[in-house]
Amino acid sequence: MADLPSTPLLDTVDTPFDLRKLKPEQLRQLADELRAETISAVGTTGGHLGSGLGVVELTVAIHYVFNTPDDRLVWDVGHQCYPHKILTGRRDRIRTLRQGGGLSGFTKRSESEYDPFGAAHSSTSISAALGFAVANKLNDKPGRGIAVIGDGSMSAGMAYEAMNNAEQAGNRLVVILNDNDMSIAPPVGGLSAYLARVVSSSEYLGLRNLASKVVRKLSRRVHSATAKAEEYARGMVTGGTLFEELGFYYVGPIDGHNLDHLIPVLENVRDAKEGPVLVHVVTKKGKGYAPAEAAADKYHGVQKFDVITGAQTKAPPGPPQYQNVFGETLAKLADTDERIVAITAAMPSGTGVDKFAKAHPTRAFDVGIAEQHAVTFAAGLAAQGMRPFCAIYSTFLQRAYDQVVHDVAIQNLPVRFAIDRAGLVGADGATHAGSFDVTYLATLPNFVVMAPADEAELVHMTRTAAEHDSGPIALRYPRGNGTGVALPATPEVLEIGKGRVVREGKKVAILSLGTRLGEALKAADTLDAKGLSTTVADLRFAKPLDEALIRRLLTTHEVAVTIEENAVGGLGAHVLTLASDAGLIDAGLKLRTMRLPDIFQDQDKPELQYDEARLNAEHIVDTVLNALRWNEHEVTGGARA
Amino acid sequence: MADLPSTPLLDTVDTPFDLRKLKPEQLRQLADELRAETISAVGTTGGHLGSGLGVVELTVAIHYVFNTPDDRLVWDVGHQCYPHKILTGRRDRIRTLRQGGGLSGFTKRSESEYDPFGAAHSSTSISAALGFAVANKLNDKPGRGIAVIGDGSMSAGMAYEAMNNAEQAGNRLVVILNDNDMSIAPPVGGLSAYLARVVSSSEYLGLRNLASKVVRKLSRRVHSATAKAEEYARGMVTGGTLFEELGFYYVGPIDGHNLDHLIPVLENVRDAKEGPVLVHVVTKKGKGYAPAEAAADKYHGVQKFDVITGAQTKAPPGPPQYQNVFGETLAKLADTDERIVAITAAMPSGTGVDKFAKAHPTRAFDVGIAEQHAVTFAAGLAAQGMRPFCAIYSTFLQRAYDQVVHDVAIQNLPVRFAIDRAGLVGADGATHAGSFDVTYLATLPNFVVMAPADEAELVHMTRTAAEHDSGPIALRYPRGNGTGVALPATPEVLEIGKGRVVREGKKVAILSLGTRLGEALKAADTLDAKGLSTTVADLRFAKPLDEALIRRLLTTHEVAVTIEENAVGGLGAHVLTLASDAGLIDAGLKLRTMRLPDIFQDQDKPELQYDEARLNAEHIVDTVLNALRWNEHEVTGGARA
Repeated sequence: MADLPSTPLLDTVDTPFDLRKLKPEQLRQLADELRAETISAVGTTGGHLGSGLGVVELTVAIHYVFNTPDDRLVWDVGHQCYPHKILTGRRDRIRTLRQGGGLSGFTKRSESEYDPFGAAHSSTSISAALGFAVANKLNDKPGRGIAVIGDGSMSAGMAYEAMNNAEQAGNRLVVILNDNDMSIAPPVGGLSAYLARVVSSSEYLGLRNLASKVVRKLSRRVHSATAKAEEYARGMVTGGTLFEELGFYYVGPIDGHNLDHLIPVLENVRDAKEGPVLVHVVTKKGKGYAPAEAAADKYHGVQKFDVITGAQTKAPPGPPQYQNVFGETLAKLADTDERIVAITAAMPSGTGVDKFAKAHPTRAFDVGIAEQHAVTFAAGLAAQGMRPFCAIYSTFLQRAYDQVVHDVAIQNLPVRFAIDRAGLVGADGATHAGSFDVTYLATLPNFVVMAPADEAELVHMTRTAAEHDSGPIALRYPRGNGTGVALPATPEVLEIGKGRVVREGKKVAILSLGTRLGEALKAADTLDAKGLSTTVADLRFAKPLDEALIRRLLTTHEVAVTIEENAVGGLGAHVLTLASDAGLIDAGLKLRTMRLPDIFQDQDKPELQYDEARLNAEHIVDTVLNALRWNEHEVTGGARA
Repeated sequence: MADLPSTPLLDTVDTPFDLRKLKPEQLRQLADELRAETISAVGTTGGHLGSGLGVVELTVAIHYVFNTPDDRLVWDVGHQCYPHKILTGRRDRIRTLRQGGGLSGFTKRSESEYDPFGAAHSSTSISAALGFAVANKLNDKPGRGIAVIGDGSMSAGMAYEAMNNAEQAGNRLVVILNDNDMSIAPPVGGLSAYLARVVSSSEYLGLRNLASKVVRKLSRRVHSATAKAEEYARGMVTGGTLFEELGFYYVGPIDGHNLDHLIPVLENVRDAKEGPVLVHVVTKKGKGYAPAEAAADKYHGVQKFDVITGAQTKAPPGPPQYQNVFGETLAKLADTDERIVAITAAMPSGTGVDKFAKAHPTRAFDVGIAEQHAVTFAAGLAAQGMRPFCAIYSTFLQRAYDQVVHDVAIQNLPVRFAIDRAGLVGADGATHAGSFDVTYLATLPNFVVMAPADEAELVHMTRTAAEHDSGPIALRYPRGNGTGVALPATPEVLEIGKGRVVREGKKVAILSLGTRLGEALKAADTLDAKGLSTTVADLRFAKPLDEALIRRLLTTHEVAVTIEENAVGGLGAHVLTLASDAGLIDAGLKLRTMRLPDIFQDQDKPELQYDEARLNAEHIVDTVLNALRWNEHEVTGGARA
């Protein structure tokens, strides 16, 4: 572990109550120590760094001015909350961030009363803060809802829906727009351009007239036509016209690293009689740590690193990542197919769409954090004859479920869904797990749902999806590296709804979907060694099922087990339903379904998460042996052979 | 059938190509005839009337000016499209609207090339139109994307997400904001207030300087500071600042019933070299039909009616509607429980929240068409100790799926979901069917999912939900009238996860969830008469399942059938999974699952839809008999007894 930074003032602050005992002139030093401690902690654990560094002063100022935890502070996304965790009683565990059993990398209700609302997906904070504000208003209790939301998160529709309803909260709602012109990737769209215009055309408010201006602004609403002209004129200086049109009092832009500006402005906002108020704060992602400021991604998410040099621990070289195999395959296919286009919702690199965009810049679309629009935009492209690939993480596609149902499935439009981060995802924990997509997609008529067993299969499935023009098709694959198999020179078109038998046996059949195939093969070795001759099939398709193959396997083997990286209602449920529909279960079937457990699993290493989920090879073996134990003599016989 | 209106000019127009042969001065007459024909048709069929009447002139003007179908016209929601259908080759079937086998009540791709994108849920049109526009741009083809969207639909986040991306389309995207200050209910929120300010403070643009103004506006982008002042000043007259900040050229407001204004403005927009353009058109819902104009809801959705008097055919008095039983029960519970609050997303009457709001106005929240915000707002309220009921139709809750997962289920917050329109819904067809909620909710950890068998059960379940503070809970119930059972004087708290046996038998067990219970009981009578003694259980809960009851039924009856008003992956899948997990299927189980078929069903009377779905009593009997036929002698024996 690197040397710990010297933090004499921070050492006196365990909670915001301690913080509020400090004098204003001590806050600069506190912020510097808080920044050093944040850098040191993330150097040890890896995680999100740039966003936290950008809000060090803001974190100090909010807790200093507002009455947390009674004032309910909601950090949008939550990955910028490490300094907040340090200041709210969790410093002693800050070097366990994102580790199994440690602190979550996001805000989390069960961790602290200072996390009144957990997050991880973007753009939920204003709605939640409004809920807190309205509840307090109804109950005549003190306490505001305070949302801190980045400009990137503002591109999502739900932030706008919440702003559109903000007036309900009156002055109990404070929205702090943390404008760093950067989410994971540079933000896109009209709102972003608008904010850039505001910031570039405005002088930051100087300290001298800042407080009085804010007071004047919040003291009354301007209604007359003359006053309206004045309001617009002021809008040109302070720039918040768009937010004022939606019913906010706009204050800003303010330098988010200048505590001498932040504190008096927030005090005025706190004491405002009217609201809701939107405070526009301009910050720099990665602020105060040279390696982060210099990096293109501002150290958004990092591995462990050396604090002095900023050099990140490199992962040992391994097989290519699924996301890149997808992006590169799609780019290659598009060389000879002008109809292929790719859409990402603010995740160009995480989805591999950056590889595609490099080769085909005019045919790649980053729509910002706007999954709903992404899907229906893709549906429009498909309706006009294009071959759109909508590349969205499994957990984020949940945000466009209605668009998947209503605009794609009902109309049977050939939108291709490249679903990354399917299954368990490791350090990001429950909020980022892709646990439900097989369930929520395979229940839809017209849908084809595939999952590759390895990166070679992903290559084939990408081409299969490209050429599937008769309706929607999804391919889901995990976060991280492939298995190391050779990549095929030529992608093949797979037959829709046909699985493959990877290994023939006689007594036990394992029906696998996705990348548990490796574990299934390991389990087969163990079972074979016990005399239980084992077939392993890679079903490839959760929908349509390979009915002929499944019938054969269920009727010619004594025990059959399905396995998938998805919760109840997915592959296993569909195989059971097929067996029931066909009457196969009437005569008795030792059929078991292995799936993600009915809990939200916390962060850990993926292999440990799958261990907790009981989806590794040993658990397959256990499941088979337990199934056979329903006839005691057989399992004994089997074990003996 | 009422007398048909005289429509000599409309009779010459079968498609927009005929329309474009008319002289501008003939369009007024055409619009009048189109309005009369629309009123006459809806008088015969019932359906959506007010919205269509509001856009008669707009429909004529768009098809007259633009080059449909190559210009892709997308009607948001689509319930205002009856005049459009009449003008686009479907007049001969216009009196089959919303009937089985007839025209859809919404736009539908399979009906006409003039419906390039189907709709029914709101706020999808800009995304889809942008897809068309971008595809054409990429392929150097002519043709715009034109979205017509109401002000109510503008409150949904996805409309904003699309606007935020609109610049990609350049002048190929035209958004026509149809501002009638009214969706189903009066719209809410900051945007609505903004539009009202714009319209009330602006003079409508006069004909004389309209065209020149529009041309000037579209000819160049203003950048300098002086010019920006001018732009703001103009914004005060024309009012479109908010849209201009998002990157649109704003034109308006324009009187949407004045063809002399509409035609030249749309011609200028069509010929504009820059874009995207947003045209703000002000219309009157129900325009030109006195009974509609006079009605509070502007005849949004009507029964068949007498064209002369406007008197609607009254449905015969029947049992109370589920929505009202819910709303009244909740209102009563809230009399003694101050923590209960209700949230609706623009459906106060359809969800019964209007009944609650009448009794408890400060505790009812209509957030507009904004389901995502509704759910997370409710989660915030729950986190602050309230007991929120989020009342949203099954099909619309799809739009908040990620919020249900991420903000409610993962945090285990006690948000109550009152899910109306579960199952098949009749005339609204596939887009409004509530087919998937059991699947997409029961796959989530922490969730309780209930379905009442009748309106008395709904009363109990409403109270059960109110008092369930340990996590999220959903109750799903159908559109329409209850069964006529007596309503309980005192709602009871049901035990979570406990079903009830409604009728005891010996050979056959029917496991019902929801309102198929009546059909299950009918089937039981038939089966009993065949000597097949039948148990009927009302499971009440899809999650958690009543494991003890299900085990008993599966192991003591020869055949068991589950039935639900939901697609694959729901109750049946969960019962099968339980039976498999417990090893019950090993010894053989004649277990069958009856569910909605794997197709999107078109509109029809609900009972006929359930007939198509094979979920009526006779189909239960068939399923049981077929299951028994796997052992031929038994069914024969049974039938003989």
